[in-house]
Amino acid sequence: MTLPTLLVLDADPPPRLGRLTGRARIVHTDAGRLAERLPEADVLLVWDFASTAVRDAWPGEGSRPRWVHTASAGVDHLMCPQLAESDTVVTNARGVFDRPIAEYVAALVLAMAKDLPGTLQLQRERQWRQGESRRVAGTRACVVGSGPIGRAIARLLKALGVTTALVGRAPRTGVYGPDDLDRLLSRADWVICAAPLTEQTRGMFDERRFGVMQPSACFVNVGRGPLVDEEALARALARRWIAGAALDVFAQEPLPADSPLWGVRDLIVSPHMSGDTVGWRDELGAQFVDLFERWAAGRPLVNVVDKRRGYVPGH
Amino acid sequence: MTLPTLLVLDADPPPRLGRLTGRARIVHTDAGRLAERLPEADVLLVWDFASTAVRDAWPGEGSRPRWVHTASAGVDHLMCPQLAESDTVVTNARGVFDRPIAEYVAALVLAMAKDLPGTLQLQRERQWRQGESRRVAGTRACVVGSGPIGRAIARLLKALGVTTALVGRAPRTGVYGPDDLDRLLSRADWVICAAPLTEQTRGMFDERRFGVMQPSACFVNVGRGPLVDEEALARALARRWIAGAALDVFAQEPLPADSPLWGVRDLIVSPHMSGDTVGWRDELGAQFVDLFERWAAGRPLVNVVDKRRGYVPGH
Repeated sequence: MTLPTLLVLDADPPPRLGRLTGRARIVHTDAGRLAERLPEADVLLVWDFASTAVRDAWPGEGSRPRWVHTASAGVDHLMCPQLAESDTVVTNARGVFDRPIAEYVAALVLAMAKDLPGTLQLQRERQWRQGESRRVAGTRACVVGSGPIGRAIARLLKALGVTTALVGRAPRTGVYGPDDLDRLLSRADWVICAAPLTEQTRGMFDERRFGVMQPSACFVNVGRGPLVDEEALARALARRWIAGAALDVFAQEPLPADSPLWGVRDLIVSPHMSGDTVGWRDELGAQFVDLFERWAAGRPLVNVVDKRRGYVPGH
Repeated sequence: MTLPTLLVLDADPPPRLGRLTGRARIVHTDAGRLAERLPEADVLLVWDFASTAVRDAWPGEGSRPRWVHTASAGVDHLMCPQLAESDTVVTNARGVFDRPIAEYVAALVLAMAKDLPGTLQLQRERQWRQGESRRVAGTRACVVGSGPIGRAIARLLKALGVTTALVGRAPRTGVYGPDDLDRLLSRADWVICAAPLTEQTRGMFDERRFGVMQPSACFVNVGRGPLVDEEALARALARRWIAGAALDVFAQEPLPADSPLWGVRDLIVSPHMSGDTVGWRDELGAQFVDLFERWAAGRPLVNVVDKRRGYVPGH
């Protein structure tokens, strides 16, 4: 019996795949050798989920893996027309990041409502200066992105007493469609972006959309950097069109040290870590091993991405 | 008909008492003239809830107001044996601060779990450095203080998925008693102090109690400063007995600029503002006016403090 070849596009630390010992021939590669190794792979595990190497290497010559799994929720970094049009199945890490990202968004909303950054600044200056903070209960949120991450965010904000509207690609029960977006944005105290990056969503948070938000509104992006026109956001903050923002994702990652975004007033910058709670790598590894066991047994895979839409379609 | 005299120990800004026009003779005083004006007062409104002037002025000569209301939840700053033993009724601002303080505690718990202070520090240094944060769901909290503020904190932490134990002066349904405290502290990820300051609770968070907490535990005090041995807390943080702490209240307020607490590593210092959400002063004023209308109509007051215990007894 020939073992299937599992090609792993590695990152540090590598995945723990001990459970697959004797059940797969595991070949590790870096981005540089990915193209030459792709033809021998039955399965490709994209462990380095920040890499665009798959998108670059896929169009080449030779046979291609029948299944690609990425240890991320978004698939924008690996998708190319040739992969989208192929028979290869793409799966993602749906589920692992839902609750951690929801908690991170709740942390940001509460921190902005209570002006925790301002309090920490006064602490550094050893200044006792009391101010009034915002009550979160009774405020309104608009969560853009109705996948499992957006839904988890909406659930947690509701638990904090926030009236929350969820916006997706198309209206359905409990989800508003794009036609309602501007109206919801104009009334929201908190605008949360948790959408996948697709051709439809790229650049959706632009000057016009920041312009319809309330001067008291705060904006949070935990989706993908290119969903937001970063310069328009910086201008909106400088002009006080909105009161605050937090970005966990950026058009260019890592954010370069000379990016003006680091120093924008009322903007919280974090290094794409909203979903990274202790043990997250092990969870991602275990999720892939579970999927591999399904695949090896000939059972249907779950978390299968609609490659044209760019995400796992769901209810 | 003689109007009752309402003496207001003022703070800036003063209370909005327009609804009482024509229904009370309102006399404003500062701490310095409180003693000489007390004998003419039927009612005393302690609007400057940070002042200890009442405790100092009360034991003097002459008649005393029949009712004292303090625009605060705690009454430790005004209580003295002579007031406790008198027939004067004392009421407090029970209710106004519950939800705001609960939100502030939730903000601190999430900020510490996600290391938001560390993220803001890295932002100032323009450093992209990813780390793992803690998941809040599934952790354990011990909330000390089973009054309305403690219960509001417990409810909100539970809504975040935190298993929460409430500890009060005596065990009752849903509330643990002091005998369980050390065991609960030793298992808690989050220890929240929201107790009133009484002779029983003064200094309760001392070296021994920080010693039983887990090295991963974080401590939050939104009660009163003297509940905590501040030097023992600073040592516990320095020795890594616990992982972090946040103090909103202090033995001395305002915290002096030369206090070492401002600079303690892994300690968040805030200026006694956990309950101060936009509009809080108006809420406090409206609450007093409602009570005044009850009092003037001869109806029983609510929020009546048990002067010996030092808080409003409740279910």
